[in-house]
Amino acid sequence: MRYAIIGTGAIGAYYGAKLAHAGNDVHFLLHSDYDYVKEHGLQVDSCDGSFHLDAPQVYRSTADMPDADVVIVALKTTNNSRLLPELLTPLLHTDPTVLLIQNGIGVEADVQKMFPKTQIAAGLAFICSAKSEPGRVNHQCYGSINIGNYSCHDTAQLKRLIADFDAAGVKAAEVDYHEARWKKAVWNMPFNGMTVALGAQTDKILANAATRQLIYDQMLEVIGAAQALGVKGLDSTFADKMIESTLQMTPYSPSMKLDYDFHRPMEIEYIYSHPIAEARAVGFDMPKLAMLEAELRFLDAKNRG
Amino acid sequence: MRYAIIGTGAIGAYYGAKLAHAGNDVHFLLHSDYDYVKEHGLQVDSCDGSFHLDAPQVYRSTADMPDADVVIVALKTTNNSRLLPELLTPLLHTDPTVLLIQNGIGVEADVQKMFPKTQIAAGLAFICSAKSEPGRVNHQCYGSINIGNYSCHDTAQLKRLIADFDAAGVKAAEVDYHEARWKKAVWNMPFNGMTVALGAQTDKILANAATRQLIYDQMLEVIGAAQALGVKGLDSTFADKMIESTLQMTPYSPSMKLDYDFHRPMEIEYIYSHPIAEARAVGFDMPKLAMLEAELRFLDAKNRG
Repeated sequence: MRYAIIGTGAIGAYYGAKLAHAGNDVHFLLHSDYDYVKEHGLQVDSCDGSFHLDAPQVYRSTADMPDADVVIVALKTTNNSRLLPELLTPLLHTDPTVLLIQNGIGVEADVQKMFPKTQIAAGLAFICSAKSEPGRVNHQCYGSINIGNYSCHDTAQLKRLIADFDAAGVKAAEVDYHEARWKKAVWNMPFNGMTVALGAQTDKILANAATRQLIYDQMLEVIGAAQALGVKGLDSTFADKMIESTLQMTPYSPSMKLDYDFHRPMEIEYIYSHPIAEARAVGFDMPKLAMLEAELRFLDAKNRG
Repeated sequence: MRYAIIGTGAIGAYYGAKLAHAGNDVHFLLHSDYDYVKEHGLQVDSCDGSFHLDAPQVYRSTADMPDADVVIVALKTTNNSRLLPELLTPLLHTDPTVLLIQNGIGVEADVQKMFPKTQIAAGLAFICSAKSEPGRVNHQCYGSINIGNYSCHDTAQLKRLIADFDAAGVKAAEVDYHEARWKKAVWNMPFNGMTVALGAQTDKILANAATRQLIYDQMLEVIGAAQALGVKGLDSTFADKMIESTLQMTPYSPSMKLDYDFHRPMEIEYIYSHPIAEARAVGFDMPKLAMLEAELRFLDAKNRG
């Protein structure tokens, strides 16, 4: 299968490079790193074994890219409404599977509104990686990806995509779309914002009794919202599990904290506003996470003002 | 009447100096500033007219102070449990009125537990003042004081105290104790903590639509708690009034923000924990203010760690 990677950052570059390194036909859209990668290739420093792509197929514009079977979108969601209409249009006339490896809740619905006939799948990446310098990705740990079918009729192609990931050394599985997005939100909603609001990593926040309880209460808000929206397979034991597994992790800065620390826009819209509004629409209130959303709106404006 | 001032900081020094300047017999307990004030006196730089006390009556220990009719306690509440038993005991055998000019809710009840027979009144200061250097108070604006009877049987003495304040140019009035403490909390609970959590003064927080709404929602939590506790005279129009009057104020850092900025302990216990627990005991939840309490516990530990 042929792949197009839109957004060659810490996530897109890693998964695209893994697919290419395994022999798939992968085409990368690049922006600021184009010249560097064109000349020097793409380096992946990885806990699973580092490697280098000497001559990746790179482009400045999606209009120049060949038709692909799968288009992987790994932009920050803060770019979606501004960039996706122009970037995706040239790639859609052959009805590819569009895999959105993006954060939050409500992303697929909004992209579907832009492109009503497009086949969309959700990619949930469980990975610690960062772009350390131009053309270089540092993959620290984890790396699996869960894939949920949002609106794909070509389910055979979705299975081939999962098989390609697996063959490339990326653990991949198909999951229930709705359940997967909300399960991930149980961790994402508390920790992304609280690490920003408190200026601290996960370990420090859990070491303090007051904020550990707060994180737990916020997780229960997400679980309550998911239940109110009819999502199966989530109860309070999942919050206990998430706290326990976070205690086992090395001290961690979620993507929102990195965005904040580097004065980039934070993904408040899809990590907070959309799920909070979805829950409110069915009468479920998330007061502590709504407060966190307001604090983040303020801090984001101050941080980039 | 004879006055003893315990805690000669921005609040105690201002009110004590006003009483002394008007001719009352005022005795000040001083700690770090004792030598300076003994030698140079006490300077009040005030929007209502500056003045200087050349030879205030100052002490290092309450054991050396004469009996007083009124003992004014203007310590930070963070010192109460550690210092009050020792400081107050020598002053109480003549059954004076103890006026607690302190922040928060629940202070009187806890002091009453230490001294079950003592006559306690609550002083609610509406004042912007700061100790600018040793022996010098900067009184920027406002200055009135509301006084609520908590457990005074000598109500004639309480009226004399109010008359003395008035005669000294301090606008004073007797108010309902419970209503006054909760009304003040409507402003204090949102703004004290949020200015710390967001690292910003009142004006910036109200200029942002998300945090202005958050402050309003937090005020409604306080009003709801007060109503659940049977406090009269409070409804949502009071929140509108508080937002409006704060918009008219010059940009302001509440006392908790100053404490935080100078790495001093914050008054979390009486400004947050006590009122939140009181409301919870009658089944009323304050989720956003409870979240703020947890954030402040974390920030306080980090700030003084």
